[in-house]
Amino acid sequence: MKSIYIVGVGLIGGSIARDIRCLNPNIKLYGIDKNEAHLETALKLGIIDEKAVLEDVVKAQVVIVAIPVDATVVLLPEILDLIPDEALVMESGSTKLEICNAVAQHPKRRNFMATHPIAGTEFSGPKAAYSGLFKGKVNIICEVEKTAFKFQKVAMAIFNIMGMQIRYMDPASHDKHIAYVSHLSHISAFMLGKTVMEKEKNERDIFDMAGSGFASTVRLAKSSPDMWAPIFQQNKANIIETLEEYIKNLKTFKNFMEANAFDAIYQDMKNTNYIKHILNGKE
Amino acid sequence: MKSIYIVGVGLIGGSIARDIRCLNPNIKLYGIDKNEAHLETALKLGIIDEKAVLEDVVKAQVVIVAIPVDATVVLLPEILDLIPDEALVMESGSTKLEICNAVAQHPKRRNFMATHPIAGTEFSGPKAAYSGLFKGKVNIICEVEKTAFKFQKVAMAIFNIMGMQIRYMDPASHDKHIAYVSHLSHISAFMLGKTVMEKEKNERDIFDMAGSGFASTVRLAKSSPDMWAPIFQQNKANIIETLEEYIKNLKTFKNFMEANAFDAIYQDMKNTNYIKHILNGKE
Repeated sequence: MKSIYIVGVGLIGGSIARDIRCLNPNIKLYGIDKNEAHLETALKLGIIDEKAVLEDVVKAQVVIVAIPVDATVVLLPEILDLIPDEALVMESGSTKLEICNAVAQHPKRRNFMATHPIAGTEFSGPKAAYSGLFKGKVNIICEVEKTAFKFQKVAMAIFNIMGMQIRYMDPASHDKHIAYVSHLSHISAFMLGKTVMEKEKNERDIFDMAGSGFASTVRLAKSSPDMWAPIFQQNKANIIETLEEYIKNLKTFKNFMEANAFDAIYQDMKNTNYIKHILNGKE
Repeated sequence: MKSIYIVGVGLIGGSIARDIRCLNPNIKLYGIDKNEAHLETALKLGIIDEKAVLEDVVKAQVVIVAIPVDATVVLLPEILDLIPDEALVMESGSTKLEICNAVAQHPKRRNFMATHPIAGTEFSGPKAAYSGLFKGKVNIICEVEKTAFKFQKVAMAIFNIMGMQIRYMDPASHDKHIAYVSHLSHISAFMLGKTVMEKEKNERDIFDMAGSGFASTVRLAKSSPDMWAPIFQQNKANIIETLEEYIKNLKTFKNFMEANAFDAIYQDMKNTNYIKHILNGKE
């Protein structure tokens, strides 16, 4: 590997680039981003060596796409059209089905690997990028059998330096499961933030009373709408299902409250405490 | 101050005790707890100097009550009955109205101060206690005018060593506001944990895909039901109101999803992003 192109030099793309630096200092990293300011920042921070444009991927050995999932669906076929036969293209979106479908019939499908490195923070842009973001985290690879073996090897070398644990999954299962453990958390946090801020309009100083518990629960409400609105759109059916179950559980809780069924509430919480054991190592 | 009695040597009581050590090493700290194992642990960890029983508060100069709010309502009048005229009694519950009402007519009302130090973690028990938990956090004092000035001075010396910022509020306003910024966060996290765990029964390995975002949003679902069920009970009316608003916002979000109104979802998230500025310093 000598020439790696990062399409989208934000938190994810920038952090992958920073890890790749450690793989081999002779690799030349090119950045492509429609946000010129991000590109300048990435250059200044040493995340990339040179700015580039989409057409430059004709010279790429590896292309890593880390942009919102709606843009991925549009750009991915164009990138595959452009790249040489010996190049690998990967993307890192939080949805997999629409993205895999978008390139399913592409003549260079075997040059492509669909991945979801499950890592991130509530921040975005190249300034938020750092080496080590992915260390010990899970990376879901979808339809691995559709990627040529020689390109799998290139991808694995990169994931290895990122320190990721690999899991294999079909795109539909990925989208269904990730709706629960990631997409629903974001909606839950956004709506909590909204509910409290609506209240705050009339009740000054309410946030003086907010402690670290509120901060933790609402943290994901700082996430980028540019990234998340397209995710919600692409994973619509699964997310609606999780939302229905979440709302149902909240309503049951409210009904218990109204009926003074605090024993049932106690038991519900006691059962849910089991999450302690599940979360071990996730924090 | 020489003899301070801590009723409830858990996370909060234990952490207050650890801070008081720094105030004056000559102070003798006594622990009272219905959980004998907790009492032994607190003694072993040096949180308290001696175990005691409730009747011993006849010798107290300060009594700090840090037990679930249902037990506080019962024990507080008994403790006020027992203490000498020159002793201060404080409690640290997450609700204030029922607690203040429970002692409103007590002949020793002026010996009592109602406080809510807004700090904590999702852990409980004396092992979770540490000095510095309250540093820089807000402490809400209710009905300060009902506490004799000489006892206010004693309380302030303790809050000072704990490093707390004092705010004054009436009990009803406290309970109304805290429902939004604390109690609702707990329910939101508990129900998120429940929803995902219900799904996990049928879908193995779903938690392999959980990242730090899920861990943060669901963190409060590890909290103690012994502490939280009574809080929900005492603040029932306010919490039901917050739950209704939260469920309403979640339903609107779901309706937007169903109607493909992703522009509205985008705008909602964009507005809620403002929480960034509010949370500064809360984490």
